[in-house]
Amino acid sequence: MNTFEELSQLFVDKFNTDHFPKEPISLYEPNRYFLKLGGKRVRPVLCLMGNELFGELSPDAIHAATAIELFHNFTLIHDDIMDKAPLRRGKETVHEKYGESTALLAGDVMLVAAYEYLNRISPNYISLIISLFNKTAREVCEGQQLDMDFEKRDNVGYDEYLHMINLKTSVLLAASLKMGTILGGALERNQNLIYEFGRKLGLAFQVQDDYLDAFGDPEKFGKQVGGDIKANKKTFLLIHAFETASAAQKEELHSLLKNNDDNKVMQVLSIFKACGVDEWARELKEKYMQQAFDHLEDIAVLTKRKEPLKQLALFLTQRQH
Amino acid sequence: MNTFEELSQLFVDKFNTDHFPKEPISLYEPNRYFLKLGGKRVRPVLCLMGNELFGELSPDAIHAATAIELFHNFTLIHDDIMDKAPLRRGKETVHEKYGESTALLAGDVMLVAAYEYLNRISPNYISLIISLFNKTAREVCEGQQLDMDFEKRDNVGYDEYLHMINLKTSVLLAASLKMGTILGGALERNQNLIYEFGRKLGLAFQVQDDYLDAFGDPEKFGKQVGGDIKANKKTFLLIHAFETASAAQKEELHSLLKNNDDNKVMQVLSIFKACGVDEWARELKEKYMQQAFDHLEDIAVLTKRKEPLKQLALFLTQRQH
Repeated sequence: MNTFEELSQLFVDKFNTDHFPKEPISLYEPNRYFLKLGGKRVRPVLCLMGNELFGELSPDAIHAATAIELFHNFTLIHDDIMDKAPLRRGKETVHEKYGESTALLAGDVMLVAAYEYLNRISPNYISLIISLFNKTAREVCEGQQLDMDFEKRDNVGYDEYLHMINLKTSVLLAASLKMGTILGGALERNQNLIYEFGRKLGLAFQVQDDYLDAFGDPEKFGKQVGGDIKANKKTFLLIHAFETASAAQKEELHSLLKNNDDNKVMQVLSIFKACGVDEWARELKEKYMQQAFDHLEDIAVLTKRKEPLKQLALFLTQRQH
Repeated sequence: MNTFEELSQLFVDKFNTDHFPKEPISLYEPNRYFLKLGGKRVRPVLCLMGNELFGELSPDAIHAATAIELFHNFTLIHDDIMDKAPLRRGKETVHEKYGESTALLAGDVMLVAAYEYLNRISPNYISLIISLFNKTAREVCEGQQLDMDFEKRDNVGYDEYLHMINLKTSVLLAASLKMGTILGGALERNQNLIYEFGRKLGLAFQVQDDYLDAFGDPEKFGKQVGGDIKANKKTFLLIHAFETASAAQKEELHSLLKNNDDNKVMQVLSIFKACGVDEWARELKEKYMQQAFDHLEDIAVLTKRKEPLKQLALFLTQRQH
């Protein structure tokens, strides 16, 4: 059994190969460029961990993990076009560097490449894995669409927001784990428990992400806090604030969202604090973490085998940056 | 065995179902809208015809045909974004009606839906079909990228242009037929012959398309001729003209491409005629048609079973509009 670090290294060594033909360079160079920007490769490692939970690492799990990482990068390339984002990991985005049309096509062909890896999976598993992959891919697109829909709306309820985050962020983490366990021969009950573990972990991760953007220690956070507030981004914090604020606070929030004064961040944060949003977010994250760990606990396998997953879960949700 | 018309009707009846969930409407309504715009559904019918060439129509062939048509529509939605096309089949394109971001996502999820149908194919065929589908999808993206690359260039050689058209147009027709024959249990030799039949048919079709845009009878063509010339689009005709024109004619062509005078179309057409491009294009189409029919001839199956394919080939390449 491998630790988180060992599995990461193992995956990165396998993944750092050329997934694309040489020609046409104008199509495949953008993909090579984007994959070289790196990333934590969390999703494929989750797939490998799910697989090792029930036995020896299988070659099928490596194929699935590769497909998942390519899929994730496909979504990033297309999301960056939709968000008109100039930078990703501090470097130019694909559409910024190569133009929108090429970025669109490069993303398309990245998704096709993901299916090429899925098609290497053994006959007894291929249909089951592709089915879960397709369902998840569909849901991630739905999440992105809802996110765009919400941007145009003034009021978004907590339940709708949770639904969107679940689709946009959580289901891919959950499905990555589940694919690994399916390929490890896990029983359906265990597959479903690991899926729920991943889903709740994803929610905890997103709450943490939203929290750090507002209340993170600027030195540890590594970037300016308040980015979400400046961009009027809907977050767990803003949505909870609207649901608990007084009429006067609500009105102030609405008017703050309409301008971009220098002290907008400070003023929004002070309403957040007055509404107890910071404390609420910390508790919400703990709640999801606890639920995640409860699901992990319920999985019928030796506790020792769950260690790497616990480590990864804590790594993802205890970080300060 | 069914005729072309019968297979078209059979496919359309099956295809006119809802391929998408209800929610979110903002994501799936654009796809429903686009599929309702219709189309000749040539590719899926080719798949069914390839299948019937070797026996009874199989349910797997319907799944493959559906995946092919969804894939084709995915490429149209994304191509329209890249081309900034306002209209498709006389109606607003998806990005024009719903915005670029939604069109991008709607296309993505259309591609995923194609894979959902592929995943219904029987275990003994699924991997083979997905493998051909992936290869073809990749090639179609490569063709689109090359097409965009060529638009920015002054000189494109005949061989490069042929390579691009082969990828952008022909391989999908060829693969549609081949998938049908694979699912009909055809031997590899016959699969390859039908693929080559489709590929050559695609080239003949494109030559015809380019020819009609320049030399079509305006009354039968149903739209103004010279659209490609006005848009400076690279076509078989323009590329051949550049390869055979005199130095003076080349210079005149270059200067005509740089402006948009009222009589540009007339002047370009007169150079085309002076270079014998019209006659050449008619012969080129006949050459590809002959090659296509030779491949069809070589397929080891009763001549009678090839009738629907011959009819469809003539329908596609003898049309005046």
